[in-house]
Amino acid sequence: MQELTATWMRGGTSKCWVFDRADLDDLGPDRASVLLRVFGSPDPRQVDGVGGATSTTSKAVILAPATTGDVDVDYTFAQVGINEPVVDWGSNCGNCSAVVGMYALRRGWVRPTGELTTVRVRNTNTGALIVQQVPTPGGQVEEDGDEYIPGVPFPGVGVRMWFPDPAGLTTGALLPTGSPRDKLLFEGRAVEATLVDAGAPVAVLDAAGVGLTGSETPAEITARPGLLAALDGVRRQASVRMGLSADEASAERAVPKLAIVAGGPASGEADLTVRMLSMGDVHPALAITGSVALTMAAITPGTLVADHVSPDAEGRIRLATPSGVVVTHVGVLDGTPAVAVTRTARRIADAVLALPGEPSTIGGGVR
Amino acid sequence: MQELTATWMRGGTSKCWVFDRADLDDLGPDRASVLLRVFGSPDPRQVDGVGGATSTTSKAVILAPATTGDVDVDYTFAQVGINEPVVDWGSNCGNCSAVVGMYALRRGWVRPTGELTTVRVRNTNTGALIVQQVPTPGGQVEEDGDEYIPGVPFPGVGVRMWFPDPAGLTTGALLPTGSPRDKLLFEGRAVEATLVDAGAPVAVLDAAGVGLTGSETPAEITARPGLLAALDGVRRQASVRMGLSADEASAERAVPKLAIVAGGPASGEADLTVRMLSMGDVHPALAITGSVALTMAAITPGTLVADHVSPDAEGRIRLATPSGVVVTHVGVLDGTPAVAVTRTARRIADAVLALPGEPSTIGGGVR
Repeated sequence: MQELTATWMRGGTSKCWVFDRADLDDLGPDRASVLLRVFGSPDPRQVDGVGGATSTTSKAVILAPATTGDVDVDYTFAQVGINEPVVDWGSNCGNCSAVVGMYALRRGWVRPTGELTTVRVRNTNTGALIVQQVPTPGGQVEEDGDEYIPGVPFPGVGVRMWFPDPAGLTTGALLPTGSPRDKLLFEGRAVEATLVDAGAPVAVLDAAGVGLTGSETPAEITARPGLLAALDGVRRQASVRMGLSADEASAERAVPKLAIVAGGPASGEADLTVRMLSMGDVHPALAITGSVALTMAAITPGTLVADHVSPDAEGRIRLATPSGVVVTHVGVLDGTPAVAVTRTARRIADAVLALPGEPSTIGGGVR
Repeated sequence: MQELTATWMRGGTSKCWVFDRADLDDLGPDRASVLLRVFGSPDPRQVDGVGGATSTTSKAVILAPATTGDVDVDYTFAQVGINEPVVDWGSNCGNCSAVVGMYALRRGWVRPTGELTTVRVRNTNTGALIVQQVPTPGGQVEEDGDEYIPGVPFPGVGVRMWFPDPAGLTTGALLPTGSPRDKLLFEGRAVEATLVDAGAPVAVLDAAGVGLTGSETPAEITARPGLLAALDGVRRQASVRMGLSADEASAERAVPKLAIVAGGPASGEADLTVRMLSMGDVHPALAITGSVALTMAAITPGTLVADHVSPDAEGRIRLATPSGVVVTHVGVLDGTPAVAVTRTARRIADAVLALPGEPSTIGGGVR
């Protein structure tokens, strides 16, 4: 029985299995086969492995100390298939990102420096740099935390993740149409939209323009006859305007996202109310990339978002989502605008995973 | 940060976290609070803990070497609540039972003896004795296995679990009515039933008597208008006849179970076709207790089951369930009839679980 050392960590609202790249590569060049076997895939229940049988609990994080001077950690994200024997290496996961700094500190790859230690992380899937600020009170590595985020009923260590210079990653410009405000057709009439590309391309609409208050639950929005289809039509127009697709019919389902915004709730607990549509559904909270786009829009004069909100004295923006309030931060990093979100992280377990079968037959036990 | 050693094992179709009782008790007398916190409960996603957010993946097994001469291991099962901060200690889990012998051998609590090592397990929840036969080829502890069971696409070590003298545990008699065959009313006409108490009380009906072939899928049975309600009416009559409830209205939902049987499939891969109803639904496979009852019925002359099947020369009975073929074994243990089922088990991981918070505040992090 071969074995594989791993650490199980919660990052934000995801559960992530963290591997030292050297340990994984000791088992051979086929990382995907090893991950599939230890996760128990393919199997809709992942009953014979460490996978949790949902997309947010079938995730792997592969880490190594970086060899270039300006980065501390190389971070590769793997979405491990559940029903299919496939590992997706094509994107990063914002939630799992939050575990990287804590893991690197605990392993001694990065030394704590004062109350807050900066860990520079390169995501190899996308090439993006993520600059993390991990609390190290008194210059010590600390695992117990007391911060909360929406969707997680237990506390963790609050890690601030900065995304430097997020504008135009997909289209080359923060405002792909050159304007902070465009007009699109919704149910046959013109409505104003802000088309922004930061973190990910997002089309922003005012809730009032589409007959909403903005504070509706996802179920209430879904229940409005024809509304999701009409909003998807607007989203497809935005895709063409942003240069993401040649025509509306060929717009991707996931890009751009659509955000419906309104002023903050009467309680005063947030500055902006957001309902995000992704893949044809209303998101239960807010994707990290979506929060980056809205924050960049908030600091851009003339956008629909800037009408409602601007950062407070500490550079914070508070976004009310269906799951609770998400806080983002605006700042400057390496001379360019940067946006940060705070996610909590926690080590769940240190583990040694059993890997059945001989090296040559890994993955061959599937039937 | 306190820590707690544990082993994650698959037992049958369940995932079970296995604790050495001494390790758990080192953390204080309130085992339930410790389990709830490490599992991440209450939380419908158990995102901050080791629980898998389903009933079959939120289970704990607490083991200790037994101190009395006739038993090797004391085994306590805990069903850890997901949405509620409650641990249920009231029943055993047949699937998780399968990990006990392997764990005891690996820990050295039991020494291997030849090709097959017998481990005597006392379940403290029910008082039941389970006698396990664990493969130890060449007198060595072996963790790699090549046996399959329905519902698990990967192989494991096949552990045969004997349930000695299972007759009459609930009612005091294998045939609570004194007869191998009774008449009950189904849609206004009399149908034959076998009422048997072994492992659990079960009412057995012939598929043909209730308008079925026996090989219908659970969905097909559920889709028949009025059928589930009519069958539940039969089940409630059986409850009264077996002395389990004073009248039909007060029959429990879970007791007795109802089994619909027919001859084996044309493929010849099984001797009996079974569809089991429990808690108002058609079971996707067959509960272990149900397979024990049907096996005892098969060796009892005059029952509806004995009409279809008797054990083969090796004492085996093959039951065709919606998920695949389950094999049971008939034998004699300590001078009384005994029934065995084979479940596979596998060690998934050895782990050290992080337990946030001070001892006095365990469970206090919930909000």
